Amino acid sequence: MSHPTPQNAKVVIIGAGFGGIAAAKALAKAPVDITVIDRRNYHLFQPLLYQVATADLSPADVAWPIRSIFSRQPNVRVVLSEVLDIDTDAKQVVGEESRFDYDHLIVASGAHHSYFGQDAWEKHAPGLKRVIDATEIRKNVLMAFERAEISDDPEEQARQMTFVVVGGGPTGVEMAGAIAELAHHALAKDFRRINSRSARIILVEAGPRLLSAFPETLSDKAQKSLEKLGVEVMVGTMVQDIDAQGVQLENTFIPSACKVWGAGVAVKDVGRWLDVETDRSGRVAVADDLSVPAHPEVSVIGDAAKVAWKENADVPGIAPAAKQGGKYVAKRIIAALQGRPAPAPFAYKHAGNLATIGRNSAVIDFGKFQMSGFIAWWIWGVAHIYFLIGVRQPIIVAFSWFWSYVTYSKGARLITGLRPLYEEIEPEPASKRG
Amino acid sequence: MSHPTPQNAKVVIIGAGFGGIAAAKALAKAPVDITVIDRRNYHLFQPLLYQVATADLSPADVAWPIRSIFSRQPNVRVVLSEVLDIDTDAKQVVGEESRFDYDHLIVASGAHHSYFGQDAWEKHAPGLKRVIDATEIRKNVLMAFERAEISDDPEEQARQMTFVVVGGGPTGVEMAGAIAELAHHALAKDFRRINSRSARIILVEAGPRLLSAFPETLSDKAQKSLEKLGVEVMVGTMVQDIDAQGVQLENTFIPSACKVWGAGVAVKDVGRWLDVETDRSGRVAVADDLSVPAHPEVSVIGDAAKVAWKENADVPGIAPAAKQGGKYVAKRIIAALQGRPAPAPFAYKHAGNLATIGRNSAVIDFGKFQMSGFIAWWIWGVAHIYFLIGVRQPIIVAFSWFWSYVTYSKGARLITGLRPLYEEIEPEPASKRG
Repeated sequence: MSHPTPQNAKVVIIGAGFGGIAAAKALAKAPVDITVIDRRNYHLFQPLLYQVATADLSPADVAWPIRSIFSRQPNVRVVLSEVLDIDTDAKQVVGEESRFDYDHLIVASGAHHSYFGQDAWEKHAPGLKRVIDATEIRKNVLMAFERAEISDDPEEQARQMTFVVVGGGPTGVEMAGAIAELAHHALAKDFRRINSRSARIILVEAGPRLLSAFPETLSDKAQKSLEKLGVEVMVGTMVQDIDAQGVQLENTFIPSACKVWGAGVAVKDVGRWLDVETDRSGRVAVADDLSVPAHPEVSVIGDAAKVAWKENADVPGIAPAAKQGGKYVAKRIIAALQGRPAPAPFAYKHAGNLATIGRNSAVIDFGKFQMSGFIAWWIWGVAHIYFLIGVRQPIIVAFSWFWSYVTYSKGARLITGLRPLYEEIEPEPASKRG
Repeated sequence: MSHPTPQNAKVVIIGAGFGGIAAAKALAKAPVDITVIDRRNYHLFQPLLYQVATADLSPADVAWPIRSIFSRQPNVRVVLSEVLDIDTDAKQVVGEESRFDYDHLIVASGAHHSYFGQDAWEKHAPGLKRVIDATEIRKNVLMAFERAEISDDPEEQARQMTFVVVGGGPTGVEMAGAIAELAHHALAKDFRRINSRSARIILVEAGPRLLSAFPETLSDKAQKSLEKLGVEVMVGTMVQDIDAQGVQLENTFIPSACKVWGAGVAVKDVGRWLDVETDRSGRVAVADDLSVPAHPEVSVIGDAAKVAWKENADVPGIAPAAKQGGKYVAKRIIAALQGRPAPAPFAYKHAGNLATIGRNSAVIDFGKFQMSGFIAWWIWGVAHIYFLIGVRQPIIVAFSWFWSYVTYSKGARLITGLRPLYEEIEPEPASKRG
C-alpha cells in the first residue's frame, strides 16, 4: 500500500509546519502520493525559537530538515519551492519551476508577523517567526551591548542598553524575560566599560494586561515575575511609532536602539491563492470539516484557518491546534478514499496555555487547573522537549538547556545573520535550469 | 597585579584566533592592560570548520564568544572593530571608531584564502576560513541536491551532483571525504527522484600527490581511503578556470554546480599596516624573537608571520604554531617589563600533522611515528575535542559527533546563509554614534 503508484490519489501539502507534518505523517499508510512543498528546507519548532533569539539555543537545535523527517516515509516527496498560486480549476499548485497536481490539497502555510499596516516598523522591530528573525534579534541585542561598550556618550550608551519589546502575549513575555536574564546574568562579566546589569528592558502591551488568553490571576503572576527579573511592564500603552532612534508612546518617547515585535500575526497569500474572502488577519473561514466551502477538495489548517471554537472564540493559532487539524484532514481523506462516510466535524481539544518567564518561572493554564512559578517552568520545559521532533536534538537541547540553566553561560552567543536561502542562491542561466 | 591601572603597559592584540588568545591568556597575570581587537565577536576552532560545511556540526559548536573567553580575565578589554591601519609612529592601532595606544603590539590577524590572483573564482568556489564560508558551502552542497531533485534534465542533474574540491591539502582532503559521506550515506534516503549515491566527488590537486606536508606513504594511504569513499582523485592536474558552469582543467571541462576551494591562503593588509615588505603570500618576515625588525615593539605571530624553521621550511600555518608564538611573545613582553633579559629565540616545536578522511580514517604524522586508518581517526577526534576551548561545547561536540557517527544522520543539515555581521548592521545617523 505504501509504495506510490500512478493511480494513487495525489495529496499536496503546502507548508511543513506542525499542521503539514501531522497531516503527512497521518497519511503514511494511505494509498496516496504526497507532495510536501515548503520554501525552506527545515521544519521549525517555533515555541523554542525565542531561545535562539536570546542565544540559549542554536538554530539547528530548533529546526529539522524536512527531508529527514520523511526519509522513511516513501509516499512523501519533498519539494523546496515558493508557492506562487493555486489553480483551483486545474487542481494544481503553481510553484516556481513546476505545477503540482492534486486531488486533495492541504494548505498549512501558517502566519507571518503583522505590523497592523505599519510595515515600516518591521526593519526597526523584527518579529519572531523564522530562524532568520531569531538570529537577527540575537544580533541586535548583542550588538547593542557592543555599541554601548564602544560609545563614550552616556546618552547613546543608555539608548543602546534600552530594549523595548512590543506585545504582551507569550512571545513578548518570553522575549522580555530572556533579554533581562541575558543582560543581568549571562553578560554580566563580559564588558569592561558598561555594566550590562543597568540595561532597561521595557515590555509594552496595548491591552489592559499581559497574556490576555490566560486567566487574570496568571497575568498578574506573569507581570510580577517579569518585574522581579527587572523588566518594566507597561500595559494599556499604545505604540504610536517606531524608528531607528526609539519608540514613540502616547506621552513619551523611549530612546532605544533595539526593539522586538511580538504584537501580532497575519496570514499572507492564502485568500489570494484560493480567490476566497478572508478575515482581517488574512485567515480563510473553513467549514466544520476544515474544507474550503468553494473548493471542497481544499482544506486549510493551522494558523491560516479561521475555525469557530467556543462562544465567540476561534481555535487559537498554536501548534497543538495545527497538529489536530492535520490529523483530522488526513482521517477525512482516508475515509473518502475508502468510500466510508466523512468523520464527525472537527472538534478542537484545548490542552492548555503555557508561557515561560525567564529561567525560573512559567504560567500554565490547563483550564480548571492553573499553576505558576518554578514547578510550572519545569513542566513547560519538559513538555516542550517531549514534543520536539527528531531524536538527536531533544537530548542535545535538553543538555544545552540544562547546562545553560546551571551556568548562565550562553554558548550560542554568536553574532551572525541568517538570511532566507533564496536570496542567496546565485541565479544560473535559464537555459541550464531544469 | 591583575587589576589594570593607568600606568600599566598597554598591549594591543589584533585578532582573537589561536595566537592572539594564547598571547592574551599568557599575559593574564602581567601588569598590563590588554586590548583584543577582532572584527568578529567569536573565536573560531578552524580545524573542525569543515564539519560545519558538511552539516555535522553547528556554527556554535566550533565558535566561542571572545568576551566569554576573557570574562574572568579583568586585564583584557575586547573591542569589536575592523582594523584600518597601524600608526607605528604614534604607536596606535587605527580602528573604525577609535585609535588604540600600544606599548606592545601583537599582530595575530591570520590568513584568508587566496585564489592566486584569480579573484573571480571566489564566488564560484568558496574557500573555508570563516563561519560564513562553512555555511555557504553547506548551502551550496545541499542546494545542489535540491536542484537535481527538481530538475528533469539528466545533464543538469549530473552537473548538480558533481562536486569539485580544488586543493589536496588537509582541508581539501577533509572536505572531499565529508561530501562523499554526505552524498553516499546521510542523504541516501532523503530524495525520491535522484539517487544521491550517484554523486561524483572530484578532488583536484596541482602537485604530484595529496597532503604534500606529509610523508609519501601517508599521501598514498589518504588517496586510497578517499577512493574507497568514492572520491575521484586527480593529482598533477592544474585548474585553468572556474565559472558557474564548472571547472576547466587542462584537457577537459567538468560540468559542476558546486565547487569548493581549498588550495591556498594568503595574508592581507599586515604589510600595508606596518609599511614593511612581505613575501608573495603577504607574510611579514620577523626576527628570531618574532618582532618586526623595523618596529621592535611590534610582533607578528601565527599565519601572518614568516618564521624560518628548518632546511628551507618555514614554521607552518597551523594552530599549534600560532599558540606557541603567542605564548613566546607574552613571555618576552613579561621579561622586558621585569627588566630581565629577553628569552632565547623562538623555537617552534612541531607536534605533528593530522588529516582526516571521512568517518573511518585519518593519517597522522608524528615524524618518527606515523599511522593511518581507524585508530588514527579516533586519535584525531579525541585530540581535536581535547583542544577545544570552552566547557559546554566539547561535551556537546563530542556527543553530536558520536551520534552523527553512529547514525549517519545530519542534524545540522539546515540551509541557511550566514553573513559577516558588519554588512547587516543598519547604519545609524553619524550624530548618534559614540
